Amino acid sequence: MSSLSNKTVVQKYGGSSLKNVTAIKKIAEKIIKTHSEGFNVVVVVSAMGKTTDQLLYQATKIIKNISSKHNRDIDMLLSTGEIVSATLLSMAINSNKLGVNSISLTGPQAGIKTNLNHGSARISKIEISRLKKELSSKKIVIVAGFQGVSQTKDITTLGRGGSDTTAVALAAALKASSCEIYTDVEGIFTADPNIVKNAKLIHYLSFEEMLEMASLGAKMHPRSIELAAIYNIPISVKHSSKISKGTIIKSGIKKMEIREVVTGIPTERKISKITINDLDDTPGVAASIFMPLANQGINIDVIVQSAGNNGKTNLSFTLSENHLNQAIEILNDSNKINSKNINSEQGLAKISIVGTGIQNQPGYAARMFKNLAGAKVNIEMITTSEIRITCIIKDSDIEKATNTLHKEFFG
Amino acid sequence: MSSLSNKTVVQKYGGSSLKNVTAIKKIAEKIIKTHSEGFNVVVVVSAMGKTTDQLLYQATKIIKNISSKHNRDIDMLLSTGEIVSATLLSMAINSNKLGVNSISLTGPQAGIKTNLNHGSARISKIEISRLKKELSSKKIVIVAGFQGVSQTKDITTLGRGGSDTTAVALAAALKASSCEIYTDVEGIFTADPNIVKNAKLIHYLSFEEMLEMASLGAKMHPRSIELAAIYNIPISVKHSSKISKGTIIKSGIKKMEIREVVTGIPTERKISKITINDLDDTPGVAASIFMPLANQGINIDVIVQSAGNNGKTNLSFTLSENHLNQAIEILNDSNKINSKNINSEQGLAKISIVGTGIQNQPGYAARMFKNLAGAKVNIEMITTSEIRITCIIKDSDIEKATNTLHKEFFG
Repeated sequence: MSSLSNKTVVQKYGGSSLKNVTAIKKIAEKIIKTHSEGFNVVVVVSAMGKTTDQLLYQATKIIKNISSKHNRDIDMLLSTGEIVSATLLSMAINSNKLGVNSISLTGPQAGIKTNLNHGSARISKIEISRLKKELSSKKIVIVAGFQGVSQTKDITTLGRGGSDTTAVALAAALKASSCEIYTDVEGIFTADPNIVKNAKLIHYLSFEEMLEMASLGAKMHPRSIELAAIYNIPISVKHSSKISKGTIIKSGIKKMEIREVVTGIPTERKISKITINDLDDTPGVAASIFMPLANQGINIDVIVQSAGNNGKTNLSFTLSENHLNQAIEILNDSNKINSKNINSEQGLAKISIVGTGIQNQPGYAARMFKNLAGAKVNIEMITTSEIRITCIIKDSDIEKATNTLHKEFFG
Repeated sequence: MSSLSNKTVVQKYGGSSLKNVTAIKKIAEKIIKTHSEGFNVVVVVSAMGKTTDQLLYQATKIIKNISSKHNRDIDMLLSTGEIVSATLLSMAINSNKLGVNSISLTGPQAGIKTNLNHGSARISKIEISRLKKELSSKKIVIVAGFQGVSQTKDITTLGRGGSDTTAVALAAALKASSCEIYTDVEGIFTADPNIVKNAKLIHYLSFEEMLEMASLGAKMHPRSIELAAIYNIPISVKHSSKISKGTIIKSGIKKMEIREVVTGIPTERKISKITINDLDDTPGVAASIFMPLANQGINIDVIVQSAGNNGKTNLSFTLSENHLNQAIEILNDSNKINSKNINSEQGLAKISIVGTGIQNQPGYAARMFKNLAGAKVNIEMITTSEIRITCIIKDSDIEKATNTLHKEFFG
């Protein structure tokens, strides 16, 4: 099929931007405006408002403990939420008086092929023939996000927030000139605006930084950022009704060598910590701890293992407070661990400074620790990556800590 | 693919049988019981309770006048209702402790191919490979009713009540030994139980009779009966929770020559009549009247044309009261009709006696008319078919008329 004559734009609207009929009509106008500017427009939608939660609630009334054997049914159930919003948005566009036409497509109809990993399927390929056909006939194409179809023709979903990944994957497949993520916040901020009053909107961010910043303002599906980085698709994150430049996430952001490298200070609350003391320091011991937790769907975040001593080692890791009791039960059942060596702590929080090159420029870690100490914030754990330094602190210290660091790095 | 070793049963559950989680769990138990008796079980479901109406209501909040250009979006929107009930029912079955497994399939996944006539698509073919594969692995198969997929891979719906047609079509394709329609009434009655207190449940009925009886108790999609007649699939209509034999609809019901042939007395209320006088009695005049009405989706029921006289004729027809004003407007716009010749009447009802052979046995029409006269019920129009005699009467006479005829033919 011949390539499309016009530039293609992919726009994604989240559930909060589609929460009711009035919101849908507004979005429809916005989309028609972009189309009238001469673009091919592909729109990816999430389910309206709290639809996904409501569908899951219905499922939990049928079965109290949703286990992996229900994943296929759950995927098919949840996929309906995005189909409903796609059709309603398409109807809103189709009823315009300018003669602009649209078509709604399910993920499978849009050619989104995935593996069969229900609940968190990954996109293997996008067959774009239908999309190109509809765009060639000047239609606005509305795609139900978050879903695809396996080789076995089963409906799959990409996991919570997966519509972002649908949008980026479509932008890559269609060689779109831009991918716009519309949401209910103005973009990504230097700190959580609920904690730091003068947190600033970040105008440009690298893909790597964005991966570490997901908690600051607009939340994006991490896989969408990975995919955008691989295909080098610039993403702009914007408010769906306010007029604002938002945040642009792209590669090749040029900064001179000497500069302030901290881009933002992401924080996360309600986390807990488990420490296991006197573990045998032998190969496979970590796996024997983390595999049973992973099998029960418990996400582990920061892991710190202290250096071995007399063949024994201590291991600490953080996880959501919601999962703490379940995790302790699982660990108590393990025959590799003596139950009396398991300690836990609640009421913790995570604070990081993020910026490309943070590891290569000396002094950032020291400035972070010194400022926290100055504010009398005790640090319980530390981990670092190429572009991030993270401290685990008491949740009750989080406001003090964030404001202190924001003042230090953003003035 | 080899044929299935066990007998196959198709069961269809309507929206009223799936109105909430408790109802779904009960249905799940019933289905598991049938499966445990050694049958291959295919279940067709409608949308839960009033879901379809609620989805349509959302659509009308977006666009006040739904026209044909929205049909594709509407089909895709409405198809989600059946998918939700299919997945929830499948989850309820999958959570049983007997190790019985089920799988939910959308209409497209179940191989239901249709033409592209959105809103009232017709099934062209059923590709049964997926169904057979799932049944061979001893799974209960739950199919979302009412929907299919066109050659162009667009989602279509079969029209209101279309899940009945899905069930019969699957029963035909799978050579099922029976097709069971579960609903919220016990079956088909000799008269409307709301009008005749001692109306009796009919145990056996021919397909042709059922087509004429649709208003008596369980309502079925007329196309499902046609399809069942063509493929000779016996249908049993039963209450989804009461234990009762219900009504069996099948061919070859044997009755001796001398017998009471009346099977039931269907009635319909809230109908109106339009009469056009002094029409030119020329070819094409009926078409010029009925085509514009059909194009606007107005269903015409009984049509009576009196014999021509001096090249002029009178034409009367009945239609739902809801459509009367719209129909008169359309007729007034016609250049074939003088507006002053259009008369209309509201507040009418239709009463019929139905039974195979009613035309070949003299005296049934006479008995019907005599009994109505005895009850002082005036007859406004009469039409007959091979198996039915129908009178149009005043709606205010309907209770008197039905009870009189029920007493005459059912004692």
